Amino acid sequence: MIPAKGYAAPKANVKLEPFKFERREVGPNDIQIEILYCGVCHSDIHQARDEWGGSIFPMVPGHEIVGKITKVGSSVTKFKVGEMAGVGCFVDSCGHCPSCKEGLEQYCDVGMIATYNGREKDGSPTYGGYSNQIVVNEDYTLHIPENLPLEGVAPLLCAGITTYSPLMQWKIGKGHKVAVLGLGGLGHMAVKLAASLGAEVTVLSTSPNKKADAEKLGAHHFVVTKDEEQVKAVANTFDFIINTISAQHEYNFYLQMLALDGTMILLGVPPEAPQLAAFNLIGRRRRIAGSLIGGILETQQMLDYCSAHNITSDVEVINIDYINEAYERMIKGDVRYRFVIDMGSL
Amino acid sequence: MIPAKGYAAPKANVKLEPFKFERREVGPNDIQIEILYCGVCHSDIHQARDEWGGSIFPMVPGHEIVGKITKVGSSVTKFKVGEMAGVGCFVDSCGHCPSCKEGLEQYCDVGMIATYNGREKDGSPTYGGYSNQIVVNEDYTLHIPENLPLEGVAPLLCAGITTYSPLMQWKIGKGHKVAVLGLGGLGHMAVKLAASLGAEVTVLSTSPNKKADAEKLGAHHFVVTKDEEQVKAVANTFDFIINTISAQHEYNFYLQMLALDGTMILLGVPPEAPQLAAFNLIGRRRRIAGSLIGGILETQQMLDYCSAHNITSDVEVINIDYINEAYERMIKGDVRYRFVIDMGSL
Repeated sequence: MIPAKGYAAPKANVKLEPFKFERREVGPNDIQIEILYCGVCHSDIHQARDEWGGSIFPMVPGHEIVGKITKVGSSVTKFKVGEMAGVGCFVDSCGHCPSCKEGLEQYCDVGMIATYNGREKDGSPTYGGYSNQIVVNEDYTLHIPENLPLEGVAPLLCAGITTYSPLMQWKIGKGHKVAVLGLGGLGHMAVKLAASLGAEVTVLSTSPNKKADAEKLGAHHFVVTKDEEQVKAVANTFDFIINTISAQHEYNFYLQMLALDGTMILLGVPPEAPQLAAFNLIGRRRRIAGSLIGGILETQQMLDYCSAHNITSDVEVINIDYINEAYERMIKGDVRYRFVIDMGSL
Repeated sequence: MIPAKGYAAPKANVKLEPFKFERREVGPNDIQIEILYCGVCHSDIHQARDEWGGSIFPMVPGHEIVGKITKVGSSVTKFKVGEMAGVGCFVDSCGHCPSCKEGLEQYCDVGMIATYNGREKDGSPTYGGYSNQIVVNEDYTLHIPENLPLEGVAPLLCAGITTYSPLMQWKIGKGHKVAVLGLGGLGHMAVKLAASLGAEVTVLSTSPNKKADAEKLGAHHFVVTKDEEQVKAVANTFDFIINTISAQHEYNFYLQMLALDGTMILLGVPPEAPQLAAFNLIGRRRRIAGSLIGGILETQQMLDYCSAHNITSDVEVINIDYINEAYERMIKGDVRYRFVIDMGSL
């Protein structure tokens, strides 16, 4: 076994602290990565605090991982020592169900194996990216573009692909009016990506003070959703609403902003299920759709797209010992737009 | 003005009773129809009892109308005296918004003018098909196939098109597993049409005693939704669920039966908005979509399709003076599957 160190939540609702553990030996199809940066996703907090139930402790969170390959297994063909590699939200899946065969490992019939807070096929717990290294099967590893700053790439592995995948699935681009609901880690990537794809992007926000930022990210319009007049003006107008909100909120209020045949894409899971008034869908033939991260192939395509279009996440780089404060700030929405841990600080 | 008679609800929550009123003179683009049959839709009850609010009294319900043309206006080109004609859920719309231009008059930006409980452009109330005649603009009138029994055709004008339109929109047919939720006026048409289009149809029902009927209508499978084992067996299997239920029910319970990328199509409006657990959509990239009746062009296509495939509604023909009892029986679900009024009884 390979000795590793990181930061872990020893149990729910206590602070993360230094933690020593082991990574498996590098198997024939594995690569070993020295982790350089790891993004901090809101789901890290949910799971570290066991807000979704069933958390496995001690937990080393982190699924927005980039680093340098230090070793490759004997059968590895896609990666070489010294190259940069990335790991996203999952590190394995069954590999033979229809979803896996289609490259949609995130919808694996057996269940994808999460990068942390999951269990390998042999039952051992998975540990995530708040650590100095990781060993991963090459089929679940991404090539990292060389032209982008690594710290801005890390969040693409979750926030980037989560927003890119539905944009691709729904063929969103030129001629579409797209609203982005929630300007956080996911939302700011949705704005950048949708604008880059040619869509006319509107940010919907309760706080007028996000306007300048929204425009800097590439949004063409900004609607303060507490302003009745502004809300009225966008009724029946959007082809898509990318809904990134995980906090409690109303679907019905926003559904009325969708045009005929418009679609609200849900990316966040509010703690209590919101109500859905059927007539809001029926009356204008609208839809609500869900989307979950993305498969390995599509994640690579997203990284290549971001490389070609010079797109990264806006990040605040922190040292690992700042992680507990970072969590508190994230809960207050006080980050523009993603904390990324510099693993050199470990 | 043309003297007319029918049955009307004088106000909410009292019985329907005989009513005399007037139809407008036949204008240049109008046709006058002697109504022979009118289907009884559940929305007739909702509106006659003012359950949706804003009802206009006295109200002559009925929007599943077939009859014989007795007069045509000087500019009418599509219809001749003596032909059969039909009228569905609306009798007018703005005619120039994008929806109207696309033949989607039901989504008219200004609002379609409902066949009853609506207001004409001049503000006068519309009266529906529980009457001996109606005057309608030819552009909002349907040609009725000659090879089908008229009484079985009447419900196609609402129940038929409401289920046909989403089947077309979502290109449902061979290779699709389709569940129909709710075996009533809409549901029985959904089964007939989906099966005729080549889909593998399952009826989901709380009552095991509907099984024989479901199969007679063309369903291939029947699932008793109170039987845990049967429900478990259909988890993640359906490409589409046609949800025709207007009564209170859970969306989440049924959403879990949808396969990856599966869609629940909402046709009914429960009195209270059900909850929607986002992860039920996100976890399998599922969707919920709404659909509202259909445009004139598509309604004609549906009638032609039914003519070619010998599809009609299963009906119980009643006399107009039975209408109040029929309402009570409908509320109990005691009709297979549509009451149709023989207007000769008026």
